[in-house]
Amino acid sequence: MKLFALLLDRIIDRVNVNLRGLGFDVRLYVRVMAEYRYGGCSFACYGLSTYHPIHLQFNNSSLSGSYFLGRCKVRHSVLMRSDIRGDELKKKGQLWQIGDVSIPLYHDEIITIRNSFLDTTLVHSNSHSPESPEEFHIRNTVAMPYANIHGAPSEGSFIGTFGTIDLTTVHNCVIGHFAYIQAGEVRHEKFEPGTIFLRSPGSWEFHYQYDLAVLDKYIRHEEGEAPEGVFIDFAEPYEDAFAGLFASARQGHYPAGAGSFVSRYAVKRGDTTIGANVLVAQRSYLENAVISKGSNAQEKCYVINSVLGPCCVAAHGAKIVGARLEEKVFVGFNSFLRGTEEAPLTVGKDCIIMPHTIIDLEEPLHIPANRLVWGHIRNEADLATQTVDLDEFASGSGDVQIGHMCFRGDTGDFVRGFRERIEHILQENGAYWDGHDKDKGHAQNMKYLTFNIIQPYADGEAEGLYPTIDIRPIS
Amino acid sequence: MKLFALLLDRIIDRVNVNLRGLGFDVRLYVRVMAEYRYGGCSFACYGLSTYHPIHLQFNNSSLSGSYFLGRCKVRHSVLMRSDIRGDELKKKGQLWQIGDVSIPLYHDEIITIRNSFLDTTLVHSNSHSPESPEEFHIRNTVAMPYANIHGAPSEGSFIGTFGTIDLTTVHNCVIGHFAYIQAGEVRHEKFEPGTIFLRSPGSWEFHYQYDLAVLDKYIRHEEGEAPEGVFIDFAEPYEDAFAGLFASARQGHYPAGAGSFVSRYAVKRGDTTIGANVLVAQRSYLENAVISKGSNAQEKCYVINSVLGPCCVAAHGAKIVGARLEEKVFVGFNSFLRGTEEAPLTVGKDCIIMPHTIIDLEEPLHIPANRLVWGHIRNEADLATQTVDLDEFASGSGDVQIGHMCFRGDTGDFVRGFRERIEHILQENGAYWDGHDKDKGHAQNMKYLTFNIIQPYADGEAEGLYPTIDIRPIS
Repeated sequence: MKLFALLLDRIIDRVNVNLRGLGFDVRLYVRVMAEYRYGGCSFACYGLSTYHPIHLQFNNSSLSGSYFLGRCKVRHSVLMRSDIRGDELKKKGQLWQIGDVSIPLYHDEIITIRNSFLDTTLVHSNSHSPESPEEFHIRNTVAMPYANIHGAPSEGSFIGTFGTIDLTTVHNCVIGHFAYIQAGEVRHEKFEPGTIFLRSPGSWEFHYQYDLAVLDKYIRHEEGEAPEGVFIDFAEPYEDAFAGLFASARQGHYPAGAGSFVSRYAVKRGDTTIGANVLVAQRSYLENAVISKGSNAQEKCYVINSVLGPCCVAAHGAKIVGARLEEKVFVGFNSFLRGTEEAPLTVGKDCIIMPHTIIDLEEPLHIPANRLVWGHIRNEADLATQTVDLDEFASGSGDVQIGHMCFRGDTGDFVRGFRERIEHILQENGAYWDGHDKDKGHAQNMKYLTFNIIQPYADGEAEGLYPTIDIRPIS
Repeated sequence: MKLFALLLDRIIDRVNVNLRGLGFDVRLYVRVMAEYRYGGCSFACYGLSTYHPIHLQFNNSSLSGSYFLGRCKVRHSVLMRSDIRGDELKKKGQLWQIGDVSIPLYHDEIITIRNSFLDTTLVHSNSHSPESPEEFHIRNTVAMPYANIHGAPSEGSFIGTFGTIDLTTVHNCVIGHFAYIQAGEVRHEKFEPGTIFLRSPGSWEFHYQYDLAVLDKYIRHEEGEAPEGVFIDFAEPYEDAFAGLFASARQGHYPAGAGSFVSRYAVKRGDTTIGANVLVAQRSYLENAVISKGSNAQEKCYVINSVLGPCCVAAHGAKIVGARLEEKVFVGFNSFLRGTEEAPLTVGKDCIIMPHTIIDLEEPLHIPANRLVWGHIRNEADLATQTVDLDEFASGSGDVQIGHMCFRGDTGDFVRGFRERIEHILQENGAYWDGHDKDKGHAQNMKYLTFNIIQPYADGEAEGLYPTIDIRPIS
């Protein structure tokens, strides 16, 4: 264990020197989580397929419980139960359009993770930084459990429990727990827990701040403690289902419609049915779930006693319990939707549930079609202050304040952009595949994925660390 | 599959050019076995531990069903269900004594396999070639099912089904099926099927040739056909037990005495008990077996309805059925011992069953203690022509002919050497461990082994081939 302890120190030092300006110390966060989770699972897994250019390099790192796909270099890092999905990295030869700039790419893009500690974190999408189009880097960064690093190069930063950075380049920032940041670029900023902040520079800003009393109930994470709250209690009973997750490399089979991919590392229980063109990612949990054609259930999402209509998106970390979603409902990162038998939830078609939304019902509730939904909703009355009709919203002008949500700028651009993004997600996932190669998405391309299981040293100084590993295409 | 087909062609061409002098063509042997077995199992496995220096390099190769431990480079090769065990490779800094020469070693030894096709082959021990002390190479070589390449660097050669090359450097040779060669060095020779040939240059020669009519019953392998016979029929019913052998990396646990290692990739069935300091290697099969203290059951051996007394050796590929072995009985490579309930076999202490011996009983038989045993034994009468008391043999002088066995030279040296080798095997395997580090052997050192499962591409041109993989110590 000696090298593992040295590695933790190295990471802590590197991150702290970046965050000294904000007066933030990651030491106890890292120490507690390393101790709390280390040893639970020693297996890591990488996927291999001809559809995803591969280059994996692991050096002086601990990777246990983590999953890798595509091109990724990890050096001097600890990745615990994290998903590093390089299946949306940009390709060599591509002309990358960002805003009105187009950048030709000379290499296949690669995810690089260095001097970082990621616990139960999702890394996905690709670098949205024009300065670094071929490298999606995560350097000197600490991410706490259930964080999402989505298309967000990060340097010298801390991302709290259930925090998300999305399509944003992040330098020397502290992202509080359950904060969601999608802002193009942020530097030297501290975002309070429960901040929901989206910004399209020059066009619009969306801001919502959770009441800390509400937030504390769902998720709190003090320095030197493990995270606590409803979100943690919710996941707890399902932990066993994922124990030793990557111990086997055997290809599983779960009945599903044509063009679907159901990860053998997802849990499928009870009366669960899966339609065509569906993606069920590793580490997702389905119990008595109906997943209709073209929908997807992404990493660390839970769908329990629920129906997802056609082309719904359950984004990374979304929890959907006791709910019926009509067509093309989008449920954003880490959202928590909980109906019960007595108080079921239905969501009308084309609704957009913002990332990090909490819908935790005390009475039956129907959310009408075509709503934008955010905040904390328990009953019918909350709909007035935490939802808005998307068409009405898009056609408005000027700044909008609804409840604690504050919007400035071009509402039409915001709604159009969000709708486009949902279409893009559905396309990427293969929701519209009709048997032709050109419409293939993740659900179809993963058909020929094979799994590879790697383990760390089990004793001695290097216990918990992996040997140096380099995997490339055949040469 | 295109690259796999090209790879087979490459290997065939390279081997054939080496064997053109002997007029031998490996093409149909390779083609038939590649077709016969390919696809049965896609998983390969490598062990990782701090006790075995690691360096694995795989390039343009197919490895399915194979197991690797230690330092090994594989290039342009097909390894199917083969065991590449680098746990007896020589270490850097060691002074290697061979005969009266001592050679200082500047590197950890490595197994290199290039342009070769190995089907269900065991590679073990280390290079016994003074010219190549740090590299145990297997180049341009084809080995058929159940071959053993034991401490035997090989170049441009063919090793037939159940053939063994042992402590011998082999250049441009054809080793017929079930031939056993231990001869220091052989060049441009063709050894007929069923040849048992041991030679200590300048000291002695042991020669036995199986009657081809007998051999055909047990094992025959015609060009363009799959191998057939009792040995193949014997293994057939157990194939299922090994299907998808390396699919899981989970550490198994089988009750055994202190200091024992029971591979989770061995099959343990029925009422099987395992004493202390025992090594049960991967791919061995135990059913209603008693394995007493200090004994070992090596790769591809079967111990069924049998008792191994203390410090017995069931060498690679040995089959022991319906037999009771007293203390320190050695059963050599690929030997076949079959008693039945009506015709049980007992073997007295200190017996040496030569490699490639067939004992297939038609009546109950007791082999007295301290015998050297070879050839084909069915009953009491056969003992006279195919066994000899070891002390009597050792004290004799001049050439000896017993039945079809012909011995020339120093019998005392032969017996002494064999006994020393058995002691060495027991020590290496950890049979004498008493809790101190210095007596540790394989059985003890494998305690902290972790398993890693790798797979080939599952579709496209590279189907069946592995990506380029390089695994080294942490740097």
